[in-house]
Amino acid sequence: MTDKKDAPKDLNEILPQIQLPPNMIHLGLGQPSNHLLPLKEMEKAAAHALSKKDRHFLAYGEEKGNQNFRETLAAFLTRHYPDSVDPDQLFITNGNSQALDFICNLFTLPGDTVLVEEPSYFLALRIFADHKLNLVSVPVDENGLVIDVLKKTLETLKSKPVFLYTIPAYHNPASVTLSEKRRKKLVSNCAKNNLMLVADEVYHFLGHSNDSLTPMAAWSGQCPLISLGSFSKILAPGLRLGWIQTHPDIIKKMAGSGVLVSGGGLNPFTSQIVNSFMDLGLLTTHIHHLKQVYGQRKKILSEQLRVHLPDQADFDVPMGGYFIWVRFPDEVDTNAFRKAAQKQDVDFYPGSFFSHKKGLKNYMRLSFAFYGTADLTEGAARLGKVISKQMG
Amino acid sequence: MTDKKDAPKDLNEILPQIQLPPNMIHLGLGQPSNHLLPLKEMEKAAAHALSKKDRHFLAYGEEKGNQNFRETLAAFLTRHYPDSVDPDQLFITNGNSQALDFICNLFTLPGDTVLVEEPSYFLALRIFADHKLNLVSVPVDENGLVIDVLKKTLETLKSKPVFLYTIPAYHNPASVTLSEKRRKKLVSNCAKNNLMLVADEVYHFLGHSNDSLTPMAAWSGQCPLISLGSFSKILAPGLRLGWIQTHPDIIKKMAGSGVLVSGGGLNPFTSQIVNSFMDLGLLTTHIHHLKQVYGQRKKILSEQLRVHLPDQADFDVPMGGYFIWVRFPDEVDTNAFRKAAQKQDVDFYPGSFFSHKKGLKNYMRLSFAFYGTADLTEGAARLGKVISKQMG
Repeated sequence: MTDKKDAPKDLNEILPQIQLPPNMIHLGLGQPSNHLLPLKEMEKAAAHALSKKDRHFLAYGEEKGNQNFRETLAAFLTRHYPDSVDPDQLFITNGNSQALDFICNLFTLPGDTVLVEEPSYFLALRIFADHKLNLVSVPVDENGLVIDVLKKTLETLKSKPVFLYTIPAYHNPASVTLSEKRRKKLVSNCAKNNLMLVADEVYHFLGHSNDSLTPMAAWSGQCPLISLGSFSKILAPGLRLGWIQTHPDIIKKMAGSGVLVSGGGLNPFTSQIVNSFMDLGLLTTHIHHLKQVYGQRKKILSEQLRVHLPDQADFDVPMGGYFIWVRFPDEVDTNAFRKAAQKQDVDFYPGSFFSHKKGLKNYMRLSFAFYGTADLTEGAARLGKVISKQMG
Repeated sequence: MTDKKDAPKDLNEILPQIQLPPNMIHLGLGQPSNHLLPLKEMEKAAAHALSKKDRHFLAYGEEKGNQNFRETLAAFLTRHYPDSVDPDQLFITNGNSQALDFICNLFTLPGDTVLVEEPSYFLALRIFADHKLNLVSVPVDENGLVIDVLKKTLETLKSKPVFLYTIPAYHNPASVTLSEKRRKKLVSNCAKNNLMLVADEVYHFLGHSNDSLTPMAAWSGQCPLISLGSFSKILAPGLRLGWIQTHPDIIKKMAGSGVLVSGGGLNPFTSQIVNSFMDLGLLTTHIHHLKQVYGQRKKILSEQLRVHLPDQADFDVPMGGYFIWVRFPDEVDTNAFRKAAQKQDVDFYPGSFFSHKKGLKNYMRLSFAFYGTADLTEGAARLGKVISKQMG
């Protein structure tokens, strides 16, 4: 047995499916509270989907996802996006992690270069490491990816990167959103350099206000672009269901891979139930509910962090998504706080997790998605106490 | 955009999710008839699973599959296998195609050598080609994989193969079953050579008689062995749900891959519904029904082929599974029959599809899974007429 892809050990310790000690408030966890998972509504949707006579979704499905589901999803996206979305631009996935893995399988070979943001989603970095990709990073500031640095990076790189992986809305972990102006610049730079943009837009629908935001997906005709969407953040992660929006030529390539030709579409059964979830109007209602809940939790956690964290800690209040990205003075290493925090039944993810080169040690990621306001209040107090003492 | 994995064109023409012309009887198709997909029972199972208060299966799941589902599946397998199966030997997959892709991702790099059978499942060959693996084949005879040739192959190969992919029961396409004696020999050879066995056991439960057969999975303690199981053949392909049975050390390695650490278990939602399907006793009843239906269809297709095919065509009546593997004299190329057959509204898969080196031209694969007895009778008559004329 060969074993060529041993995972780095430090990342093995930070599983999202982690078992928590009983009193722990783990402010690092980036997933919804259990009671935000809409069980009753899923029961309705399943009964709706399975009570019809049609059983096509129990057979092997179309490689790019079944037509009826892509049509329903396209109509949903069209209602929420500035431009209309065509079903032929959509490819149904098993959620974003599997989609990223699939994209790596399809477009990369070990040793290829991929551009990532600094910081970036730590488990995306892990997937890229599994594929033995060479990572080069471009920084993110308060307006998202810094395009001027991207330009310089593209000029100086010896080998052409296969793609750029970016999280344009309510960034994980930095919580920033790429400005409209930079989105356009990014697209024109990618077009000019024939660089594929892989835009992870999973938080797009989770803005806490009602301001509209143009998804990167809207530019998929203007540069090589794969937009990743997911039902994990707007419905339930356990569904393992998401979508890619891209040019039909890229979809054709994806649908032609051996694993799809053999197994058919990636999740026809769950797709049909989620199709009913949308048909019954449950998704729009649920997203509205999530925006309100997360907005309120964000408010509480921000306020309590302002009260309890020492003055040297700073952060911007996010406009959407799951995360607060706290910055400490340069000389601080947040890893050093972690043991003391865990002893006080509070935890977080240190900034270095989100850097492929183990930088960003003076940051930490906190999330307001998993806990209610009482736990967030208590968690902020515990964390503030530990950090004040450590920095004291 | 780079594009390093273009699929061979001839295989693009033979999608299992193919749209058939209205009067076509495509005897090549290896999938169940739509009315064999248990819609009403799935409705019951979904109602059962979703009416409970527990909603853990809507959250990110355990990387190797949720504990309750692995326990239910282990109990099911224990009832049907000679030895008891432990939940810790099980890893839940998205079905066999995805499992094969995952195994390639985890254990191989482009250029590695993999042993396959001649013939083998054509879309597995396609998945291996996508991973740029170097395929070396070992023949199959009426008792399955020829172990003496395997031994010689292992002695003469320059680079050690990463694994051997085999279909031990009711082979696709050859319909043969590896004898008990050869199973033991295979295990001892793999142990001796430290060669990993990837045993595709998807047809294991579809024996047409009640004779018991020891699955390769039973030997997973005695050599490096990954047994692939799937709900596609015994329940519904659209679920995209299957399992791996192997040593817990290998499961640990699988569960540690980035895509699982990020996305959690591969299909927690569908797993929970299939858990109810098993809990309600529906799976055992359904498999019993399938064995009877396929046994009857096999009988009809075999009889009708004996009536209508010319004497130079020969085949063994299969003991289980989906397929009849028809052999013609060496000089025949079944590809040459195909256009004439399609004109007469009948189709099949030529033997060359199942050979990585485009051999086996004098064979064809027919399936009795997709059509009822009336269509099988008509299909055999059409095929016999075309071939008799062609062989004139």
